[in-house]
Amino acid sequence: MFQIMDGKAVSLQIKDELANEVRGYVARGLRPPHLAAILVGDDGASQTYVANKEKSAHEVGFVSSVYRYSANTEEEELLRVIDFLNNDDEIDGFIVQLPLPKHINEQNIINAISPAKDVDGFTAISTGRFVIGDERAFLPATPMGIVNLLQRYKIETDGKHCVVVGRSNIVGKPAALLMARNSKEANCTVTICHSHTANLAEITRQADILIVAIGKPEFITADMVKEGAVLVDVGIHRIPDETKKSGFHLCGDVKHSEVDEHCSYVTPVPGGVGPLTIVSLLQNTLKAYKQRFNL
Amino acid sequence: MFQIMDGKAVSLQIKDELANEVRGYVARGLRPPHLAAILVGDDGASQTYVANKEKSAHEVGFVSSVYRYSANTEEEELLRVIDFLNNDDEIDGFIVQLPLPKHINEQNIINAISPAKDVDGFTAISTGRFVIGDERAFLPATPMGIVNLLQRYKIETDGKHCVVVGRSNIVGKPAALLMARNSKEANCTVTICHSHTANLAEITRQADILIVAIGKPEFITADMVKEGAVLVDVGIHRIPDETKKSGFHLCGDVKHSEVDEHCSYVTPVPGGVGPLTIVSLLQNTLKAYKQRFNL
Repeated sequence: MFQIMDGKAVSLQIKDELANEVRGYVARGLRPPHLAAILVGDDGASQTYVANKEKSAHEVGFVSSVYRYSANTEEEELLRVIDFLNNDDEIDGFIVQLPLPKHINEQNIINAISPAKDVDGFTAISTGRFVIGDERAFLPATPMGIVNLLQRYKIETDGKHCVVVGRSNIVGKPAALLMARNSKEANCTVTICHSHTANLAEITRQADILIVAIGKPEFITADMVKEGAVLVDVGIHRIPDETKKSGFHLCGDVKHSEVDEHCSYVTPVPGGVGPLTIVSLLQNTLKAYKQRFNL
Repeated sequence: MFQIMDGKAVSLQIKDELANEVRGYVARGLRPPHLAAILVGDDGASQTYVANKEKSAHEVGFVSSVYRYSANTEEEELLRVIDFLNNDDEIDGFIVQLPLPKHINEQNIINAISPAKDVDGFTAISTGRFVIGDERAFLPATPMGIVNLLQRYKIETDGKHCVVVGRSNIVGKPAALLMARNSKEANCTVTICHSHTANLAEITRQADILIVAIGKPEFITADMVKEGAVLVDVGIHRIPDETKKSGFHLCGDVKHSEVDEHCSYVTPVPGGVGPLTIVSLLQNTLKAYKQRFNL
């Protein structure tokens, strides 16, 4: 029997805690935390993501604003907006929703964000602070969400072998680093696997904790998982499905129908890691707010 | 039969190449690259390190300067020196020799170095650029030296399993990240082990490439190494030894007397990784110089 790690429930629990904390600050006469987002162009998925972030921000008592720009906005204009937000004392943190239109250099834009307000943790300084272990660092949202989830389910990490499948800058690499830190939250031996890994199944079968972020639908099968493993599935894919009203169903990077029964704990897709990533953004924003007011 | 990876010989070869390149720039009328060092206090080891760096810089045709300050220098004064060096167009890169006296916050000092001149690669921005894969990044010296050495001996990394023992900010973590990058130089599956790793021998025995940076004399024994492994020993320790005129002998983190015969390639101690770390500093300085002059 495996236990579902209910990301939705945990995210509600953490949001409740955040809302409580915010109420406390407001009761003391402080302004509420303020999260802003820059949205360029009219990509449907980006609009949805930003709308969800705004909704979540409101749920915990934050102020939120969205700065919308057309798809043909110049890089220089965005840099001016970022400069404005960097210097606005009323804004604690902000994000630039990715992807940006192709004529804009994403790294230039991201790295213009003040490290004090970089609540996505995507700038080079934030990444460096995180790797070095600087406590001011804003951790990247998805790896932070994974660690939150494992903690809430009291998963032991000390001395455990965590295998991370995938080496992207926003999930695989930072997840591996976070799980390998010498900290209360995570203190694993960590293996990072990827498309060039030989004998992948041999390695994933060693995992006490298996984190999958490879971006391939149902890639992890039962023969690749050790009996009793803790399984974290970061993937989410839309698969065309005529039997569904929507015309598709969702699946992850793991073939849950055959893998889950071999595990001790499993994140479902959807409702696993996903809900935690927005919560990480809220936690980072509250951290930025507290740093600003020395709380 | 194992082959010695001769760090001394490789470092001489790379220095020759650097000297040639520098001569070419000077012949074109450019000033030579200039590496500076800040040395605070009179720690003997630090003096030796800085003297070696200066000597190596001269060998490849660099200009070098050392800024010396007494052990009771204030943090603010050092910050002023760094500001001066950051803005001096005649200096391409500089380092602050660590450790600093205890009354000085090392992170404050390091992070004041301009990313364009941070040839040790220790600032948060450099670390972040390196992790993200920004090509301007100055890589940390020891991991960069290891990759150089493996390349010169044409060690295949693609699809190989590299195990790194140790998770320090200056060796273990960056070495793991460097070996796991998707690049020509290194493209391994990487496991990072440390003091909390359970069944360490079981994991190190899986290593095609074993990098040891745990800081414990002769810690790795024959039972921990796979037949035919490539072994990189980063450790260096002085062991009291009455049979030696100096009163000590040097050893690494690996018990070479019993381990080497099981390996295909081995770095000796001394003369393995050590000579490459200074070379990395020279390579980074030349990179900074080339970035400055768009070469």
